[in-house]
Amino acid sequence: MNSEKTFNAYREKMNKKILSSNNKVIKRIFNLDTNTFSDGILPLRTKEMLGLACSMVLRCDDCIKYHLGKCRDEGLTNDEVYEIFAIASLIGGTIVIPHLRKAVEYWDELQTAV
Amino acid sequence: MNSEKTFNAYREKMNKKILSSNNKVIKRIFNLDTNTFSDGILPLRTKEMLGLACSMVLRCDDCIKYHLGKCRDEGLTNDEVYEIFAIASLIGGTIVIPHLRKAVEYWDELQTAV
Amino acid sequence: MNSEKTFNAYREKMNKKILSSNNKVIKRIFNLDTNTFSDGILPLRTKEMLGLACSMVLRCDDCIKYHLGKCRDEGLTNDEVYEIFAIASLIGGTIVIPHLRKAVEYWDELQTAV
Amino acid sequence: MNSEKTFNAYREKMNKKILSSNNKVIKRIFNLDTNTFSDGILPLRTKEMLGLACSMVLRCDDCIKYHLGKCRDEGLTNDEVYEIFAIASLIGGTIVIPHLRKAVEYWDELQTAV
Amino acid sequence: MNSEKTFNAYREKMNKKILSSNNKVIKRIFNLDTNTFSDGILPLRTKEMLGLACSMVLRCDDCIKYHLGKCRDEGLTNDEVYEIFAIASLIGGTIVIPHLRKAVEYWDELQTAV
Amino acid sequence: MNSEKTFNAYREKMNKKILSSNNKVIKRIFNLDTNTFSDGILPLRTKEMLGLACSMVLRCDDCIKYHLGKCRDEGLTNDEVYEIFAIASLIGGTIVIPHLRKAVEYWDELQTAV
Repeated sequence: MNSEKTFNAYREKMNKKILSSNNKVIKRIFNLDTNTFSDGILPLRTKEMLGLACSMVLRCDDCIKYHLGKCRDEGLTNDEVYEIFAIASLIGGTIVIPHLRKAVEYWDELQTAV
Repeated sequence: MNSEKTFNAYREKMNKKILSSNNKVIKRIFNLDTNTFSDGILPLRTKEMLGLACSMVLRCDDCIKYHLGKCRDEGLTNDEVYEIFAIASLIGGTIVIPHLRKAVEYWDELQTAV
Repeated sequence: MNSEKTFNAYREKMNKKILSSNNKVIKRIFNLDTNTFSDGILPLRTKEMLGLACSMVLRCDDCIKYHLGKCRDEGLTNDEVYEIFAIASLIGGTIVIPHLRKAVEYWDELQTAV
Repeated sequence: MNSEKTFNAYREKMNKKILSSNNKVIKRIFNLDTNTFSDGILPLRTKEMLGLACSMVLRCDDCIKYHLGKCRDEGLTNDEVYEIFAIASLIGGTIVIPHLRKAVEYWDELQTAV
Repeated sequence: MNSEKTFNAYREKMNKKILSSNNKVIKRIFNLDTNTFSDGILPLRTKEMLGLACSMVLRCDDCIKYHLGKCRDEGLTNDEVYEIFAIASLIGGTIVIPHLRKAVEYWDELQTAV
Repeated sequence: MNSEKTFNAYREKMNKKILSSNNKVIKRIFNLDTNTFSDGILPLRTKEMLGLACSMVLRCDDCIKYHLGKCRDEGLTNDEVYEIFAIASLIGGTIVIPHLRKAVEYWDELQTAV
């Protein structure tokens, strides 16, 4: 299984488990997340860019991977993704760079996976 | 002096002082910041949205103010700004809300200042 | 107006403004917050302790103030609050101490305000 | 070796190494940690809940695992642990969710390990 | 009263109040802090540089002020302090810059206060 | 391949990939990083100590590893490195300890690798 499939399979397995717990607050957070990341006043494409940039400055590798997959789905070009990488690295500082390395690696895998 | 003018005046006074120090690394960071936040592959309008969202999840009031001013300059609508507020509050959690309050207050002042 | 009243008045004024914006995601986050901080499997008293500790390690002065007010309402003793301060300072490190100073100042004001 | 044993074995091996260094400050931090997480004004059970919530909003997977083990020892129910998960996810935002997935996975392993 | 005096007076007043609470964990954290920031294997001068840099990347204005005062006491030159500012701004990113502005303002006040 | 070689090989492979993207902002950040971490007003030795301490309080394992390698190159003694570990653990709190464990493990590998 390639990186994207492994990542998504774990994510889906655990989401299912979490939602089966019947904790209403967690269910509503998950539901709100689904509703937020859909076309609204801002198109989904823009929202995914925001999600990617926020994930980078907060240095969450899994969140970065998730939004990279969505950015690919939304048709972001390589140059656009790198510009988001650049803005996040500038705002978040060099502490972001180890996460940038993993982001670039995963982004490349997403390209070759098609 | 209104909020925006007070904010900008302090910012400019201190930036001038910082740059007069002749520390090359700091100068280059400031310079890089200016170059990054200009039209590139992504238009400045999109970059300012990214800057605003990142500032909110990192919970920096002054950074939020700065990017709100720029978002106003780039013609973002009230609904667009609130959608960025929403995404940042969802990703960053309720810990972001006190910063959201100040952001909304400043955003309103920016409107009436025109 | 004392500290608590000033704090609450600003908080309520801005919450009202934020909710009048009709952004559904933000409304739902506020609503979820209200629902979460009520008696559930865990009593509200315990939840407010969790809210206070999380606010301290995340170093959000306004969040700390808010949960301190609620901890007072829930009848936490001085020793209990200080034990939460201690745990948060240990986990979060000495970087938490400036926030501890403000927390102690506000906690004292809450006592004398009664 | 199951997850819990692997986790604890590494933790103990490294703690031993760290303490053998004879750095007094580190020794005292470790000692203070041991003393703090014992029954005091607040029972250990409550303190472990605080430790778990703080670890989640600070997004430290190892700290989450550690406190989950202790919460199990203190007899927290599944519903109680999920309520702490919910509060931490609300306060810390969706950036906490990847850590929630790992937390749920480890919590399940702790149950079956008995 | 000048900035430094105001800052130190509040700090001392609140520290006294905190320590009068008789919470042993907090007392030991304060005590440990005092012991750590004294000459050891590393001279205090180096430790204060580390304290300043850490305070900047963690973006704590009061911690920055405290360590700037100590750096002044330890005889750090203007150029040395700016080099620490530069390293912290690079590692921590442009989100550190609003804190850099306040740091520079306070550092200047410390010079003229002599 | 030992830990240090594996770490450096991945780091260099990805840096090369990132720089081949021709994103000017990222290139300049990398370039600025190289220039900053060289002898200046402060010797490189001191700068690497600052880099290590900042990496620890920001809890970035890869950044810690990188600066540990450089601290070894700059001839820091075991006691000096542990004193930096102590300061970072005090400032950053016990949430730093899981990163301290990995840091100690890697530091030991760096010694035996010689």
